[in-house]
Amino acid sequence: MPSSNPSSIKLALIQHSCNEQREQNLKLIEQRLRSAADQGAELVLLQELHNSRYFCQTEETRFFDLAESIPGPSTELFSALAAELELVIVTSLFEKRAAGIYHNTAVVFDADGRLAGKYRKMHIPDDPGFYEKFYFTPGDLGFTPIDTRVGRLGVLVCWDQWYPEAARLMTLAGAELLLYPTAIGWDPADDPAEQQRQLDAWTTVQRGHAVANGLPLAACNRTGTEPDPSRQTEGIHFWGRSFICGPQGEMLARAGEDEEILLADIDLRRGEAVRRIWPFLRDRRIEAFGDLKRRYIDQES
Amino acid sequence: MPSSNPSSIKLALIQHSCNEQREQNLKLIEQRLRSAADQGAELVLLQELHNSRYFCQTEETRFFDLAESIPGPSTELFSALAAELELVIVTSLFEKRAAGIYHNTAVVFDADGRLAGKYRKMHIPDDPGFYEKFYFTPGDLGFTPIDTRVGRLGVLVCWDQWYPEAARLMTLAGAELLLYPTAIGWDPADDPAEQQRQLDAWTTVQRGHAVANGLPLAACNRTGTEPDPSRQTEGIHFWGRSFICGPQGEMLARAGEDEEILLADIDLRRGEAVRRIWPFLRDRRIEAFGDLKRRYIDQES
Repeated sequence: MPSSNPSSIKLALIQHSCNEQREQNLKLIEQRLRSAADQGAELVLLQELHNSRYFCQTEETRFFDLAESIPGPSTELFSALAAELELVIVTSLFEKRAAGIYHNTAVVFDADGRLAGKYRKMHIPDDPGFYEKFYFTPGDLGFTPIDTRVGRLGVLVCWDQWYPEAARLMTLAGAELLLYPTAIGWDPADDPAEQQRQLDAWTTVQRGHAVANGLPLAACNRTGTEPDPSRQTEGIHFWGRSFICGPQGEMLARAGEDEEILLADIDLRRGEAVRRIWPFLRDRRIEAFGDLKRRYIDQES
Repeated sequence: MPSSNPSSIKLALIQHSCNEQREQNLKLIEQRLRSAADQGAELVLLQELHNSRYFCQTEETRFFDLAESIPGPSTELFSALAAELELVIVTSLFEKRAAGIYHNTAVVFDADGRLAGKYRKMHIPDDPGFYEKFYFTPGDLGFTPIDTRVGRLGVLVCWDQWYPEAARLMTLAGAELLLYPTAIGWDPADDPAEQQRQLDAWTTVQRGHAVANGLPLAACNRTGTEPDPSRQTEGIHFWGRSFICGPQGEMLARAGEDEEILLADIDLRRGEAVRRIWPFLRDRRIEAFGDLKRRYIDQES
């Protein structure tokens, strides 16, 4: 662990809606970063693909124009803001690595503006309204935490949030905090009971990662309704509800559906205290875990 | 999957307190099994080590006298009850395998009385009041589901409930339902806020397994306060709160702290419907999961 690691950090999540104008989205994010810094934040987590509307509702080649190189214009902007505001910032960008190779990439800036590291989304969804397999090449950087002044950050992205393996691998590599930029919402055609089950499941599985790993966790989700560019569906109603929980999954702060800067103080020492009473990592039956590398264990019939 | 698999099953959990008299505990369980069958149950899950008090509060060699062979007197009794009542029964026994080799073993009886299979608790805890590493040799049967008339059961035991790996391996091996006999409670010396966090964490992490794997799940916990045989502590206040949830982690039934037969109908088809909208198993990055077999990924300093 970094020796400069503070015992407590103030974390801010910026939950907002996006429109079609990149410059307007960036202006809004810059304003909120300044506001978060004014409120004492030391670490800011942005939502997934915050520079644009969620373009994966349809498969259209023109949307690849939204991608940019890393480093590139966005990293220059966020690097400058991180240095000026002395903030560690976790961003989420549409990365153009080469013609035909694009990634959904979280880029972390340390509080001096240094590009501290990046994480390329490993698990890529594909279901109606979320056609990400068309746009994003699966990440090839593995599950590697990123060291910053505020600690070693286990940054994962959206669909990763459903995978206990991703959270565990970040934990085993020394992450002190799990962070998820995300963009998830309801299909307006689903009934209210199904919508509530989905929201609860999303919250529960991530709080479960916090518990299983004895780590604080935060998920920053977008909000607002975005129309389907193909006009085939009613679009997506992003549900907001960003949250920050502690290492027993206990809620520290939770947003509603509206735009919000969500703040919480996180005591990084509490994770170790919890692991002392619940030493799950001690007892893992690693010699019996080989089949976790299998897709499925087919039965002989 | 077994071809005789019904689409919906009625599951009962028998949550009770235990006293020092084995025969009284067995008599109570038999009464409740009959009651569950009268109420239409097809599958009954008992709590962990239901034949006795939770003897692991201290380390005393005399408690090994509670262990018995499998098959043995308990399996004879439960086999006969399963056949008579046409119930699939998941029991939890203290197994004597040999002098010096004892296991915490779940034994499953099919509705014709056949011993359908057993699972030896893989993850063994050891923390104040729960000195299980003294009593139980870690299981050596792996994470193998057990086929019964009501489906393929992924039976795990207590401390396993904190391990996403255990639930995932049962899922990959075709489990249709995750079942946890358990014995967990509060240290009366903890403050109410910590007690609530522990109960919530226990519930949340297991609901998270249901979500991550798209499977229904049930945990049957003991209740009642049991004194510390060594009189060094205030004992354990087992918190009850057995529950049954669906494949989105949605609560189907939940017990309070008192003794109860908890019933719920489980639709085994819903898991597949949920996996169609949330195809997590499709996208696991198995080629990047090798480090799950490591204890920890040590950093070079």
